Amino acid sequence: MQLYHHPMSASSRFIRFLMGEYGVEYSLVHQNPWDREAEFIKLNPAGTLPVLIAESDVAICGVYAICEYIDETRGTMMRERRLMPDYPLERAEVRRLIDWFCVRLEQDATKALVRERIFKVEMPRNSGGGAPDSAAMRAARNNVKQHMRYLNWLAGSRNWLSGKTLTAADIAAAASISVLDYMGEISWPESPQAAEWYQRVKSRPAFRPILEDRVRALTPVSHYADLDF
Amino acid sequence: MQLYHHPMSASSRFIRFLMGEYGVEYSLVHQNPWDREAEFIKLNPAGTLPVLIAESDVAICGVYAICEYIDETRGTMMRERRLMPDYPLERAEVRRLIDWFCVRLEQDATKALVRERIFKVEMPRNSGGGAPDSAAMRAARNNVKQHMRYLNWLAGSRNWLSGKTLTAADIAAAASISVLDYMGEISWPESPQAAEWYQRVKSRPAFRPILEDRVRALTPVSHYADLDF
Repeated sequence: MQLYHHPMSASSRFIRFLMGEYGVEYSLVHQNPWDREAEFIKLNPAGTLPVLIAESDVAICGVYAICEYIDETRGTMMRERRLMPDYPLERAEVRRLIDWFCVRLEQDATKALVRERIFKVEMPRNSGGGAPDSAAMRAARNNVKQHMRYLNWLAGSRNWLSGKTLTAADIAAAASISVLDYMGEISWPESPQAAEWYQRVKSRPAFRPILEDRVRALTPVSHYADLDF
Repeated sequence: MQLYHHPMSASSRFIRFLMGEYGVEYSLVHQNPWDREAEFIKLNPAGTLPVLIAESDVAICGVYAICEYIDETRGTMMRERRLMPDYPLERAEVRRLIDWFCVRLEQDATKALVRERIFKVEMPRNSGGGAPDSAAMRAARNNVKQHMRYLNWLAGSRNWLSGKTLTAADIAAAASISVLDYMGEISWPESPQAAEWYQRVKSRPAFRPILEDRVRALTPVSHYADLDF
């Protein structure tokens, strides 16, 4: 299997982390989200990441379809290490949180910060490259604060984000948070319970290769890949 | 069960249509998407529609979690009328399209048109009510055209949108399209294959109650609830 991804795409990180936890072997294809190459649009008309090339070379597009596919085809063999809970109501909570971190946090904050601080540096001028928009960054940073308050509350009131066990919700959340953390956009001392939770997820071996990724445009903050920070 | 919805929320329509097809009984609670009432935010911190109150009064939030929950708890009893296909790769395509119509089309077009043309008329001034933004409407209308070209292509190259049988993808697409059609935003003669497909989905009895909904701010176009138009 092949995964079309970008190291600063939170949703791509989520799927890589999930496949790592499930022991799925795959190779990575780097795709710039701003390139709308005809070949890639043929795979995913939405032009978004991630895209998984699965059995019979079929493209599975987007975090919702890929995450369910991986769990449906590999989850049962994971037994108690499965990242989807047994009961429909508990799965509904995991899915709410995946949506929260991969769609809502992305729209509210991550998308703008990654675009302004990383993509615009690498993008050619005619694709939208250039100076960052400080108003967009300010609005996004405000939203990061709101989101961190909610994450801190979740982490403080449950053992893992969606309940008693580690689930795909934690994997999605950590993947998304790691992109913001790379850019130094998270003030950890203000969110001690989220920090404690993040440290636990961060120490999982499947997260290591993701934390080792770098982009040319920006060096990560010093604590970024530390397991205790 | 209770469904918090708004008649002009495409995602709410999708879930109502899906529950109708599966014969699920529920009552409706009207929720204005611009009201951020504390009671509602307690049910769904994201403040978005739809929200389903299921067994043991637990809130299931958002189209992704609700649609999977309904299918998981009722789907197997539907046998060949189940709206999720049997094979993982086929389910992945259904999920890609649900995402396309409930997230992408919504972001690209439906959200702005509903806000400018319907919500702003009903919203109090201090919640954002007032005159519509014509630039936002123009951009959204351009996107409707692009989306209709893609829908027309899909409808023309497959029997139903995701393949040989009717699936949740058709239900999601028809629900989303019906909101645009209510406002007269769709030029059907330009999309004959999409029109033929829509007519087939529109004639399903589970769609009738949704097509009978009206909002005070705007009367639907004349062909809106006709089964052959």
